[in-house]
Amino acid sequence: MAGEKITTRAQDYSQWYLDIVNRAGLAENSSVRGCMVIKPHGYALWERMQRGLDRMFKETGHSNAYFPLLIPKSYLAKEEQMAEGFAKECAVVTHYRLKSIPGKGVEVDPEAKLEEELIIRPTSETIIWNTYKGWIQSWRDLPLLINQWCNVLRWEMRTRLFLRTAEFLWQEGHTAHATQAEAEEETHRMLGVYRTFAEEWMAVPVYYGPKSEGQKFPGADYTLCIEAMMQDKKALQAGTSHFLGQNFAKAFDVRFQNTQGQLEHAWATSWGVSTRLIGGLIMTHSDDQGLVAPPRLAPIQVVICPLGKEATEREASLAAAKKLAGQLRDLPREDFFNFEPVAVKVDEDFNNTPGFRFNEWELKGVPVRVEIGPKDVAQKACVLARRDRPGKEGKQMGVPLDQAADKIVALLKEIQANLFAKAKAFRDANTHTIDDYEEFKKKIEEPGGFFLAHWDGTRETEDKISAETKATIRCIPAHIPKEEGKCMVTGRPSAQRVVFAKSY
Amino acid sequence: MAGEKITTRAQDYSQWYLDIVNRAGLAENSSVRGCMVIKPHGYALWERMQRGLDRMFKETGHSNAYFPLLIPKSYLAKEEQMAEGFAKECAVVTHYRLKSIPGKGVEVDPEAKLEEELIIRPTSETIIWNTYKGWIQSWRDLPLLINQWCNVLRWEMRTRLFLRTAEFLWQEGHTAHATQAEAEEETHRMLGVYRTFAEEWMAVPVYYGPKSEGQKFPGADYTLCIEAMMQDKKALQAGTSHFLGQNFAKAFDVRFQNTQGQLEHAWATSWGVSTRLIGGLIMTHSDDQGLVAPPRLAPIQVVICPLGKEATEREASLAAAKKLAGQLRDLPREDFFNFEPVAVKVDEDFNNTPGFRFNEWELKGVPVRVEIGPKDVAQKACVLARRDRPGKEGKQMGVPLDQAADKIVALLKEIQANLFAKAKAFRDANTHTIDDYEEFKKKIEEPGGFFLAHWDGTRETEDKISAETKATIRCIPAHIPKEEGKCMVTGRPSAQRVVFAKSY
Repeated sequence: MAGEKITTRAQDYSQWYLDIVNRAGLAENSSVRGCMVIKPHGYALWERMQRGLDRMFKETGHSNAYFPLLIPKSYLAKEEQMAEGFAKECAVVTHYRLKSIPGKGVEVDPEAKLEEELIIRPTSETIIWNTYKGWIQSWRDLPLLINQWCNVLRWEMRTRLFLRTAEFLWQEGHTAHATQAEAEEETHRMLGVYRTFAEEWMAVPVYYGPKSEGQKFPGADYTLCIEAMMQDKKALQAGTSHFLGQNFAKAFDVRFQNTQGQLEHAWATSWGVSTRLIGGLIMTHSDDQGLVAPPRLAPIQVVICPLGKEATEREASLAAAKKLAGQLRDLPREDFFNFEPVAVKVDEDFNNTPGFRFNEWELKGVPVRVEIGPKDVAQKACVLARRDRPGKEGKQMGVPLDQAADKIVALLKEIQANLFAKAKAFRDANTHTIDDYEEFKKKIEEPGGFFLAHWDGTRETEDKISAETKATIRCIPAHIPKEEGKCMVTGRPSAQRVVFAKSY
Repeated sequence: MAGEKITTRAQDYSQWYLDIVNRAGLAENSSVRGCMVIKPHGYALWERMQRGLDRMFKETGHSNAYFPLLIPKSYLAKEEQMAEGFAKECAVVTHYRLKSIPGKGVEVDPEAKLEEELIIRPTSETIIWNTYKGWIQSWRDLPLLINQWCNVLRWEMRTRLFLRTAEFLWQEGHTAHATQAEAEEETHRMLGVYRTFAEEWMAVPVYYGPKSEGQKFPGADYTLCIEAMMQDKKALQAGTSHFLGQNFAKAFDVRFQNTQGQLEHAWATSWGVSTRLIGGLIMTHSDDQGLVAPPRLAPIQVVICPLGKEATEREASLAAAKKLAGQLRDLPREDFFNFEPVAVKVDEDFNNTPGFRFNEWELKGVPVRVEIGPKDVAQKACVLARRDRPGKEGKQMGVPLDQAADKIVALLKEIQANLFAKAKAFRDANTHTIDDYEEFKKKIEEPGGFFLAHWDGTRETEDKISAETKATIRCIPAHIPKEEGKCMVTGRPSAQRVVFAKSY
């Protein structure tokens, strides 16, 4: 119900998350198992994410394209790791027609059985590399730098809105290169794009680096990832970039003539982020009042609430609100706002109390709220309230209306920076260096967090730790000082510490 | 092969179309029956269409959202016309898992059979109205103005790239209203948006108005449409807006409390355009040199070709080209360009001859080509070539470089207007008023075109005409003078002329 409080994090973290998703109007479960409905406010977040990422993809030379939803079953089998990794999660199309039986509904038409079953794409490497075969003949055709925005489906048994759903929306980049070095460079470049997006747009600090062998993508030679810490101190894999070697070029026989006239298999990468990012954004910044959206991605960046009891008061405050909204929209378009106008909304709902209205906008995560009441109008001023510091503490009173637009823009930038700093401080405070496995086993439960520990590099040890603690290696961080040591489990030598955590 | 000529329209119109789709790099058939791959240049056209339309949808108060790809089979049966209309075209998901059999590929796991089969959405009215049931309780929840950008699938036996494919991309608006009048107003408003988009963005003139009963959407009370004429004088349905009455509200029991406290079924509309528009754009404007893209939707609006044989010449012309490109990109963002920077490309491919390079850009439909050779550099000038008038006729020589950016923008606007005028003149020249059915039967074959004729309003007569001539009623035009008369087939009274044509 509107006005009702959401569950607090302390009471029940999982329910707090679902309450925000529900009450902020972000998404809901559909009647189709594991498939979500992304509601307008949630989809608007995704649209902003798309626009920000898409711009970066294009600035790094990529074009968008679109490949079929359906993939012949046999394609999956052409790359063995992929078949292993995805076969169990595939929705299968077996028929292409229903029969409508008047009065009795519809039935599958047994005569319309497909010769070869089709699967709904769980990811598109196979169909794309089958297509690339026709596009790549010569080194002149390379690199091929393509991205696709689409829906994919992986049949999941246990789902949670945004974080793990059967159908989700994502982008998948698929590139082909003439040399290994170029493909590896691309793999790292796109991880860099994801890291920049996470940190500078989502205000989410990330650890980044390769996954261990046990955690890599089926079909990849190696996988790079970004990993974020949620407020329950669990890790969320927020994006991955895969170096695929020549695996798919070999599986689909994609060869090109190199500058020496010899035939070679092309080198591949793929990389993706999904609507899962929305879950990560919610769980990084939000509080017990509701969603906290970082200004660069907030669907509504500024809400202006004119206030007043009498009709003449309302008229005056509404006029001031509309004027300020116009000034904000007319500001020069800035990089910070992705060269779009500032997204400002005037809340004309005088029928509800100011307290109710303010709560609703806090719930929806709007970064800056402007209040203009009769006294403010008289003083040609307004009040600015910042979402990252709810209550009186975050309010600036008596801001002159003729300076408000500039102050609001400055405040949005400050909030963006503050959210990142806050999230980073939390992440760092909950990242621990640890050398003793017994201690690790206790601390991974309480207080939890990220643990930087030495590991001997074997799958065996990784599996043992995972089986005993449910913690996994999130990444082999590329950006912490290299320090040799001994594996906390086996005592064997280790080249550097890796990040262990429980994860979503 | 690059450099090879495409089939002319006179030689083979269908092959001409396919040659353009292929050679301009727009799309190709995939290995999955009826499903296309939209290649980067084709997808870039779609992205521009999306951005233009999306802006108009938002300016008319709509929000985007996302609903599941998969729909329980039984939902289709809840609305009878819909079951009739779409059952035969539905891809059916029956299983949710494959088994990977090492060395033998993958097989459908018989133990993973779904209790109720799911269909891939052919359109989303059913799943959306099932969802709206939870969103609509009171008149305060209305109107609900939602749009979805997504893929849909309709199993088609005979497909043609963009024009008719099994999977296609589209947008589908689904709105709910408290009153019939409001819903009908919305139906007309969105037809207006499509008409504006077709005429002002695509430069495609359209007839608009209701479909006859025989041509309406399954589940609609009535369907409004826009109809364009292709260069073979056939009609293409380019967009539809449906008034759905209370049909879906009744099928899914969506009721709201009105202001008097009574429960009522909500009123619905739906409206959509798809990647079919790309086919319509190609067939309206293109010529025997290749694609002609209207400037507002062209992925590349301006290509600058620096020319020169000697290294120093090339250096100088390239520098001038880059400078001009920068000037174009830095122009103030205009409504005409959807507030985006002018899309300009510098063609640095000095290895091919100027003639080869010019042909390639003409093939791809770039509206304005700028040529800068050594003589131009010496004169601080350039040559502007316009795509809508190929050859010398369309060239402006000696345009001063310091005025070029402004002249190019003016030229882009002129080309946009000229393409519309040309298409309209063609459409009007091939639209005939006709009263005699025998004459109609001849003329529909040769010369073909749109025929404004009287019809008695019955399904029977419509079916007879269609069976005998393959022409259908494209729309009951809303914008030609009403004129009573007698049906050309039966002689019964007719309230106005309707548009007959053969169609895609």
